[in-house]
Amino acid sequence: MAEANTRRRARGGGGAARRAERTAVRIETAKYIERNIPNFEVLNDEALEIIETNAETVLEEVGVNFVDNPAALERWRNAGADVDGERVRIPRGLARELIKTAPSQFTQHARNPEKSVVIGGRNLVLAPVYGPPFVRDAQGGRRYATMDDFNKFVKLAYMSKWLHHSGGTVCEPTDIPVNKRHLDMLMAHMTLSDKPFMGSVTDPSRAQDSVEMCEILFGKEFVQENTVMTSLTNINSPMTFDDVMMGSLEVYARNNQACIISPFIVGGAMAPVSVAGTLTQVLAEVLAGIAYSQIIRPGAPAIFGAFVSSIDMNSGAPTFGTPEAAHITYGAGQLARRLGVPYRSAGSFCGSKLPDAQAAYETANSLNMGLLSGVNFMLHACGWLEGGLVADFEKFVMDADQLGALHALAKGVAYDENAQAMDAIREVGPGGHYLGCAHTQANFQSAFWKTDLLDYKPFETWEEEGARDTRMLASVRVEHLLANYQQPQLDPEKLAALTAYVEEKKASMPDAFT
Amino acid sequence: MAEANTRRRARGGGGAARRAERTAVRIETAKYIERNIPNFEVLNDEALEIIETNAETVLEEVGVNFVDNPAALERWRNAGADVDGERVRIPRGLARELIKTAPSQFTQHARNPEKSVVIGGRNLVLAPVYGPPFVRDAQGGRRYATMDDFNKFVKLAYMSKWLHHSGGTVCEPTDIPVNKRHLDMLMAHMTLSDKPFMGSVTDPSRAQDSVEMCEILFGKEFVQENTVMTSLTNINSPMTFDDVMMGSLEVYARNNQACIISPFIVGGAMAPVSVAGTLTQVLAEVLAGIAYSQIIRPGAPAIFGAFVSSIDMNSGAPTFGTPEAAHITYGAGQLARRLGVPYRSAGSFCGSKLPDAQAAYETANSLNMGLLSGVNFMLHACGWLEGGLVADFEKFVMDADQLGALHALAKGVAYDENAQAMDAIREVGPGGHYLGCAHTQANFQSAFWKTDLLDYKPFETWEEEGARDTRMLASVRVEHLLANYQQPQLDPEKLAALTAYVEEKKASMPDAFT
Repeated sequence: MAEANTRRRARGGGGAARRAERTAVRIETAKYIERNIPNFEVLNDEALEIIETNAETVLEEVGVNFVDNPAALERWRNAGADVDGERVRIPRGLARELIKTAPSQFTQHARNPEKSVVIGGRNLVLAPVYGPPFVRDAQGGRRYATMDDFNKFVKLAYMSKWLHHSGGTVCEPTDIPVNKRHLDMLMAHMTLSDKPFMGSVTDPSRAQDSVEMCEILFGKEFVQENTVMTSLTNINSPMTFDDVMMGSLEVYARNNQACIISPFIVGGAMAPVSVAGTLTQVLAEVLAGIAYSQIIRPGAPAIFGAFVSSIDMNSGAPTFGTPEAAHITYGAGQLARRLGVPYRSAGSFCGSKLPDAQAAYETANSLNMGLLSGVNFMLHACGWLEGGLVADFEKFVMDADQLGALHALAKGVAYDENAQAMDAIREVGPGGHYLGCAHTQANFQSAFWKTDLLDYKPFETWEEEGARDTRMLASVRVEHLLANYQQPQLDPEKLAALTAYVEEKKASMPDAFT
Repeated sequence: MAEANTRRRARGGGGAARRAERTAVRIETAKYIERNIPNFEVLNDEALEIIETNAETVLEEVGVNFVDNPAALERWRNAGADVDGERVRIPRGLARELIKTAPSQFTQHARNPEKSVVIGGRNLVLAPVYGPPFVRDAQGGRRYATMDDFNKFVKLAYMSKWLHHSGGTVCEPTDIPVNKRHLDMLMAHMTLSDKPFMGSVTDPSRAQDSVEMCEILFGKEFVQENTVMTSLTNINSPMTFDDVMMGSLEVYARNNQACIISPFIVGGAMAPVSVAGTLTQVLAEVLAGIAYSQIIRPGAPAIFGAFVSSIDMNSGAPTFGTPEAAHITYGAGQLARRLGVPYRSAGSFCGSKLPDAQAAYETANSLNMGLLSGVNFMLHACGWLEGGLVADFEKFVMDADQLGALHALAKGVAYDENAQAMDAIREVGPGGHYLGCAHTQANFQSAFWKTDLLDYKPFETWEEEGARDTRMLASVRVEHLLANYQQPQLDPEKLAALTAYVEEKKASMPDAFT
């Protein structure tokens, strides 16, 4: 059980602390992926230069809208843009110039320092699904998500060896008032897990609450000098930056917290029907968004986001794991690297209603392309179902198991003397077998990726055990993980302060459900 | 229904022929994939050179066994190898020198010239699953395969737009005597389909029968001057070339027919537990095998094969779609290209017992890696289940649908003026949408890959229609395709001659079931 190994902590504290330490457990989490394989690139230099030139043309001639946000318009005017009503036209080169202050990589700190992540460079940080209003599992079917579901997903992410990040809105806790949800969600990430997490973006005041809760958890000075949240600010494609998302971005950037500036694109609807056209628009939008973050605070961490799906032109439904989405994901990775900022894309995307073969084909297509395209931060890396409407418990652990395979793939191929295995080939010779040879004995435990879920049993054994499909195996694993969950320790004073903060905030306003 | 478009044939003949033509249909088959994307490469030059040097060392110092085949030993001795008993040690450089006569690409002719394929270069030819003794479908469960099943798979492959090749032993027709099976299987490929196919390798005499049946179908001279079969000769790894496979290879090479020289490797059992060690052994085996084909007939087409799976070190079960298999597949592609011969690897590999999520994850991992690793001939591209023990009807059409996505992915990204879509971006502007714009209207029909199987319907519609999973959708599609199958025409004289040949052969020997 790789994901639930328990070890006693090495360091103790006072008497009560020591007693607490003795019963504490530590869940194994893999280090974020440090790629030792190349990126896969589908665009040649000519195509890249055309797209970059066209994106600047779009910014200069068409421009972008900053809606209901007079302060943003004033900032853009001061930065040298041509502002006409809410339309901001950005002279060629200005956005790239502004972006020069954005870091190429940054550390997002976790409250457990061992779980801090470096986002950018050759790294890949994996975070769970974000945003579904529904959940599904084999027993309960499809239903509105609740805070109880939310807590379970945070626990599952904490238990997963392959998730480096606790994510944000792992599902929408629809039983909690809209204006208070973010408080409970942040409390869950802060208390049920010790992995890094995301802040609220549904209102600038909630972003501010997120920052204040982090100031309690990490210390006020620490937050100002370091990044402790990476949050998702979507662009209303095409080329519209609304006041809610930009208001949240302003809060985060001002406080040195990271934002993923992410066009939200269903190709053919929110962007042109062609890959090159979509990449042009994505680049223009990201240039405007990251530049704006640097106007707010030069040096604030920002991520080049690209959420892309294609469209079924018959029904208008978004489609996932498609070749066109792959082209865009590969291409956007190239554009992000040329721009010199971290890149977010891909995930366990699928359109299927069930965690079945369709879901797995689409998801595997997306996960592989995410690894090979050079993604640095992969939101939705597990648990996504039905076009993002559903967070699925079984698929969460199914996808998480596949994330382990990405870790192994990213390691690349060793070719030192041990890996060359010439002694083994000489020892075994024609017609022999390698199972018992010295090289195999010395290396087999680390040679192959190991699943925690999939079935390799002989047919007869599998049949005797109930002929279970992947979903049924996953259902057992979900229950097992939740039954073995143990909460990571948190300084009782911090817990009390966080609890008081949340209670006070909740008491300060009536419930709102819209 | 892209896969079953029917068109009247353009060319007619005499009266009866014209009447036949009027009712004939033509099933749409895509051209083999011509890649317009790069290959993905995991090995650097230093690693490649080490592996190549080590492979030569293996051939020189350890050598390979040619078993029960005195003529082969004599041939090797004459070619300059050091022969000791059945052990053949090949001096450094000799195998590569011999391989220089092997073509870097070749045409395999189909009886329908429009369906001939070019194997090698940047191309990818897709062929169905090969070898399973069992079949499975949703209605009948898992059972021994019969000739009736075999015929159905040949029909499904004929109906698939994305399969360029009819394959060989799509399943083992266990109701037909072992010594007569190949005759019925070849008849099925020759009469139920007009795509290229594979010959028998289970005995040299059956390879000879395959050649003779092709001489009837294509004409004797045509067969001698052209390649009309690509057959699978496995190597008994490690480094053993048995008389059955080599006897078949001798027949095929002598007759200018193509052989896939394919180490059959479960890593850790038939090869070292490391990727670099496995690649070294694979290269040594392929060097020896292709060199031997060139000793038989210089210029005979030969393919660098690599069937690789990793192993579950707990149970010894082979595992599929794993990162280690991916490393080997990517690396072997690099070695094949440096050697200058076509490359066969990958497929719809999975270990799952059902066409469920596990099967689809593993298969999607393998198919993607097959495309990106530069495979030229992908056997097992659809229908593989349970480690190759089972040919699954539903998975056959599920995988075949994914093969369509590979075609689209391989096209790469257009960046001409239309693809740049600047007019569309200007027309739509911030806050608009692209569904109705001129560029979308002009391009939407060809913009996105279209599935023939997967479900994109709204949840409510999907639920009303029975909440079907992928397997159930595939079951419907299998029935639909088989119900709409129409046999391609074959010259009645050739059909009569083939029938007579098979009857005569069958009458010439008693049934044998081992």
